Amino acid sequence: MSMNTFGHLFRVTTWGESHGPALGATIDGCPPGVPLTAAMIQHWLDMRKPGQNKYTTQRREADEVEILSGVFEDITTGTPIQLMIRNTDQRSKDYGDIAEKFRPGHADITYWQKYGIRDYRGGGRSSARETAARVAAGGVAREALRALAPNLTVTGYMVQMGPHGIDRSAFDWDQIAQNPFWTPDAAAAANWADYLDGLRKSGSSVGAIIEVTARGVPAGLGAPIYAKLDTDLGAAMLSINAVKGVEIGEGMGAATLTGEANADEITMGPDGPVYSSNHAGGILGGISTGQDVVVRFAVKPTSSILTPRRTITKSGEPTQIITKGRHDPCVGIRAVPVGEAMMACVLLDHVLLHRGQIGENRGSIG
Amino acid sequence: MSMNTFGHLFRVTTWGESHGPALGATIDGCPPGVPLTAAMIQHWLDMRKPGQNKYTTQRREADEVEILSGVFEDITTGTPIQLMIRNTDQRSKDYGDIAEKFRPGHADITYWQKYGIRDYRGGGRSSARETAARVAAGGVAREALRALAPNLTVTGYMVQMGPHGIDRSAFDWDQIAQNPFWTPDAAAAANWADYLDGLRKSGSSVGAIIEVTARGVPAGLGAPIYAKLDTDLGAAMLSINAVKGVEIGEGMGAATLTGEANADEITMGPDGPVYSSNHAGGILGGISTGQDVVVRFAVKPTSSILTPRRTITKSGEPTQIITKGRHDPCVGIRAVPVGEAMMACVLLDHVLLHRGQIGENRGSIG
Amino acid sequence: MSMNTFGHLFRVTTWGESHGPALGATIDGCPPGVPLTAAMIQHWLDMRKPGQNKYTTQRREADEVEILSGVFEDITTGTPIQLMIRNTDQRSKDYGDIAEKFRPGHADITYWQKYGIRDYRGGGRSSARETAARVAAGGVAREALRALAPNLTVTGYMVQMGPHGIDRSAFDWDQIAQNPFWTPDAAAAANWADYLDGLRKSGSSVGAIIEVTARGVPAGLGAPIYAKLDTDLGAAMLSINAVKGVEIGEGMGAATLTGEANADEITMGPDGPVYSSNHAGGILGGISTGQDVVVRFAVKPTSSILTPRRTITKSGEPTQIITKGRHDPCVGIRAVPVGEAMMACVLLDHVLLHRGQIGENRGSIG
Amino acid sequence: MSMNTFGHLFRVTTWGESHGPALGATIDGCPPGVPLTAAMIQHWLDMRKPGQNKYTTQRREADEVEILSGVFEDITTGTPIQLMIRNTDQRSKDYGDIAEKFRPGHADITYWQKYGIRDYRGGGRSSARETAARVAAGGVAREALRALAPNLTVTGYMVQMGPHGIDRSAFDWDQIAQNPFWTPDAAAAANWADYLDGLRKSGSSVGAIIEVTARGVPAGLGAPIYAKLDTDLGAAMLSINAVKGVEIGEGMGAATLTGEANADEITMGPDGPVYSSNHAGGILGGISTGQDVVVRFAVKPTSSILTPRRTITKSGEPTQIITKGRHDPCVGIRAVPVGEAMMACVLLDHVLLHRGQIGENRGSIG
Repeated sequence: MSMNTFGHLFRVTTWGESHGPALGATIDGCPPGVPLTAAMIQHWLDMRKPGQNKYTTQRREADEVEILSGVFEDITTGTPIQLMIRNTDQRSKDYGDIAEKFRPGHADITYWQKYGIRDYRGGGRSSARETAARVAAGGVAREALRALAPNLTVTGYMVQMGPHGIDRSAFDWDQIAQNPFWTPDAAAAANWADYLDGLRKSGSSVGAIIEVTARGVPAGLGAPIYAKLDTDLGAAMLSINAVKGVEIGEGMGAATLTGEANADEITMGPDGPVYSSNHAGGILGGISTGQDVVVRFAVKPTSSILTPRRTITKSGEPTQIITKGRHDPCVGIRAVPVGEAMMACVLLDHVLLHRGQIGENRGSIG
Repeated sequence: MSMNTFGHLFRVTTWGESHGPALGATIDGCPPGVPLTAAMIQHWLDMRKPGQNKYTTQRREADEVEILSGVFEDITTGTPIQLMIRNTDQRSKDYGDIAEKFRPGHADITYWQKYGIRDYRGGGRSSARETAARVAAGGVAREALRALAPNLTVTGYMVQMGPHGIDRSAFDWDQIAQNPFWTPDAAAAANWADYLDGLRKSGSSVGAIIEVTARGVPAGLGAPIYAKLDTDLGAAMLSINAVKGVEIGEGMGAATLTGEANADEITMGPDGPVYSSNHAGGILGGISTGQDVVVRFAVKPTSSILTPRRTITKSGEPTQIITKGRHDPCVGIRAVPVGEAMMACVLLDHVLLHRGQIGENRGSIG
Repeated sequence: MSMNTFGHLFRVTTWGESHGPALGATIDGCPPGVPLTAAMIQHWLDMRKPGQNKYTTQRREADEVEILSGVFEDITTGTPIQLMIRNTDQRSKDYGDIAEKFRPGHADITYWQKYGIRDYRGGGRSSARETAARVAAGGVAREALRALAPNLTVTGYMVQMGPHGIDRSAFDWDQIAQNPFWTPDAAAAANWADYLDGLRKSGSSVGAIIEVTARGVPAGLGAPIYAKLDTDLGAAMLSINAVKGVEIGEGMGAATLTGEANADEITMGPDGPVYSSNHAGGILGGISTGQDVVVRFAVKPTSSILTPRRTITKSGEPTQIITKGRHDPCVGIRAVPVGEAMMACVLLDHVLLHRGQIGENRGSIG
Repeated sequence: MSMNTFGHLFRVTTWGESHGPALGATIDGCPPGVPLTAAMIQHWLDMRKPGQNKYTTQRREADEVEILSGVFEDITTGTPIQLMIRNTDQRSKDYGDIAEKFRPGHADITYWQKYGIRDYRGGGRSSARETAARVAAGGVAREALRALAPNLTVTGYMVQMGPHGIDRSAFDWDQIAQNPFWTPDAAAAANWADYLDGLRKSGSSVGAIIEVTARGVPAGLGAPIYAKLDTDLGAAMLSINAVKGVEIGEGMGAATLTGEANADEITMGPDGPVYSSNHAGGILGGISTGQDVVVRFAVKPTSSILTPRRTITKSGEPTQIITKGRHDPCVGIRAVPVGEAMMACVLLDHVLLHRGQIGENRGSIG
């Protein structure tokens, strides 16, 4: 219902603006008894932190998370967990030029029309800084999943930057943490470095596609419709700012397939059903099959660019705008840990929902 | 929260299985005072009804809707509206072969694993029949929107069938209702007819992409994150069975664009901001701009095909399966009115939410 | 969130007006695998049915429930259960006099003001007929509880009618089903019969207090605040029309006690903690203790009486009103099975919530 | 849905334990454009602050509220408002004795059973300290109501302490702020001072009844059932810890009335309907009438008392317990501003809901 909350039983509400005193996440419904420290969450925040290389905004935030509630003696209590991150680097003077002008492709104008608020210091709630709160919440979800689904892992990576996609035949899980783009294709990483450097120098920006894969997901999570695992994962990704498209398994490409090509054939393995392929992205009829759950989402290019664009002022006068702030040439890079976090939160939520309504899976095979 | 409900203030819960006595929609939160009759809803159901031409399942359902509550003297009362559609053509013998075998690419197997239920008569909740309830609810939403957003229209159409996309330069709104595929491209309609006929005869099936456009949407609907209009529209479409991908505006293609290309430049028109293009799909920062709202979704091919596929039985034995039931070679055709209905429901919901929290837009331009 | 729904995981939405074609309950989130037939639900509806003796309205409704979905071969499937009850006796001519006048103490006037609807045939959603849908839903909850909390029983009974309370020392569980007032005090039943007969003949009405006790409730259900078991039970009872007060354990009387008197002392029994008393009504800090859960609620007297009362018409003219319809001199009688149904629904919901977040109770004693 | 959230559109989630670093409230759905400063909220927190006189706990908390988000240049932005209050006085050594023993009448034991957590420093989430977050949220609701319902005022006061009720004929609104018990009856205040002093010295405690009245409530708020204004107000009060009963208007006493006595007769005044009395507590059929909305709730006596009570330890051994911490002899005193805050939040929520579904009241009289 609420505008800033997601989840059914594991519910996360994020709060905070890019240039206010702090931002964070209020987490309700976490199981009790989960080992949890600030350091565990900090690990994931550090992955996302801007300013780590020349490809992300030079805004430098410590992004130190503080646990204000819900944890006692490093164990979750089952009560709300409040995670707070102070904003420290708020050089708002950079943004002075945009107080009166709307950036084309940016939330400025609709935000103003709806709320009558023009937070000239930055993007307010629509700033990418909000995603720090998601990453923190995802850190909690990962710890809770450890006990409930011990084999489950969540890994995000970039598969396309602008027009340049990865070579799937070169996919290497171990490569992902080795390059600034979180991509599993070493050659792509090298090419993207040059490409992005050019964009950065020209003050331009570009979009990207992120894929997030969860391995070790138990069969049975989700529901046939509305709360389809596809729906909740898709909504989670679409709720990230700048995301304009989402795919499960074959995604939009499923439209091009015949029924023969799309059907993942089934055989019986030692531990249950085995599928010959994974066009379904690990979800059949809204419910997880036990295969890898695969989600992709597209992040549009940052609207803050140095090339002048035509726009209008708050008083309706025609003008041009150049945005000089510290921005990411490819915000998709920082979206990788965000996508991972959303996947972790949604899967934990569905593990709890499943246990609530069903207990254990009721149908056995073989 | 709930597994079979969507919407915040205008809440729709659908119920019913493909082969039970009836199915329908329970609608809570409809404004009072809306003129509403069964005939108004029937109009939209008739558009979706199967068996109208050789390209959709030959199952013949009357799909007659009955209003059981919430309407008095042809006016909504503001109390729950119950819409019921009796199932009349339940020839379940056709499905006999699948009682023990799981159809690859179908919800059968996960449904069984989770619920321990094998409704051998049909797909249960995961049957496309459930979408009749959505279409009926969409009919109510359309009538309610008439008073609240009088210029708003919602139109769905098919833009791709299998590998064959439409020619955007041949787009003709008036063509949409003239062909069995609801496509705006007359030449595509002719080609698809041949293509689909071939598939039908060979017992195969194919996917499709549907686009739904809402024109006349007021600026200001939505929220910066989580309840982004993109999120709620995307979730609505992903909740339809067989949908595996969704796009707003440029969608996945936004990844390939530079910031310059993606930004819709703004000028001032007589009635407010005017945009030079609509890469954003009518939604900036999660909030509607006043431009056309454009959503696309991919429907995978039906898994019920005549070509044998390898699978297993409930007891884990390897086998093969052919599905002989009455199925659609391209279920995407019938998804067109379903996508329209979801768009109408989501937009009405956001009109009510906006009025609840904000009243009227608070920021004026010019 | 929704206006006509209650419950978190076991969610019940009721629909239907007193004089429309039908009413019912849409139940989402019921566990799969629960044996369920219409006859099982009918059993509880028959208890509530009006017209069974001279103390309840002479309106005669068959109140036959039909299961339209969610059950296959007499087993719940885990999908939405739709329960429908057709209205059969809709003699609306009796109500003609009230089409233009507002009944003092009745929802007529506020309903009109808010919705602009004057359903002159009866009370619309505020009619006591709505409670049939609750009783039907409660029947489903009871069957689901059988597997999840096998020792749990729910029993409602009347403890006060007008100024006449029961003698607690004469409390006899077996007496409850033996008299038309569902009271555990045989002497009270006899006295109330005379008292109510007098009221009925004079066209008057009177209020009542109902108590509902759940025995065999496992310890651990609920939450410290907001979702306190007290809160959810209290809200459930207050949501019944005509209910204006609710108490858990000592209830309002807790105000008069000292800390010494109110504290239920604890000793250790063979199966866990044993309490010396039950002032808390089986709920400490919002969480069930394992003792009997005890809730009471007050039902105000029917506003439909034969003594003329001053009121106004829709056009604001002063007038008087007498209500000649078929009404209950003490609607509290029919509220007994309704209170039971609400208790069953809330307890099942909390059993599922508890399992979802916690699994099994985590703290052991002894 | 969530365990620590209340409200439909104006949603408040409180977080924080009595002895953690901080506590607070996350508020989602507040309208934009409301003037708001920390000082405005502090005003209400200061009313509730413990340690102000000898009748409340001597724990001294600064209870200084910090606004971390949702407000820009002293105006709400429509995004989540985060209110944080640091815990400063956490002398937890006083509680040492209760680490192993359960306090009879306290949440200790059920909290342990459910969560496996024994926060020996204090009551965790079930501590009365949580109510500071409610008061802060109520401060926000009051400011938002100023614009939406300018004549609306909310006033709480104590009407009973232990066995001693007020004299309704001596009711004086101006007296309420003049005595430490927030009671409108000056003579009662004097008597209660002596009575409570005796209790305090003997280490005992006592319960109380609080009444909260909202004046200037517009007609039309609420719904016929489930979201009855009675239900939401009742649930709000029952969600406060130690509350065990709630009444609207006549409350439990409605059971003793006849239909003639209970009906508030209606005449026509210059501004709309005028009622001869207010047995209904300003709510008919779940919807506000425009009269004063009157809610009462009972607070049980603190379980922390100096008289030894029999109990058990975590290992199940029988023992006795005396609680020496700094506690309130009558926690009901501090519940007065809490009840006011809940009333303000619920009314604001219903103002927004009403506007969302209905816009303006649709039925006029006269």
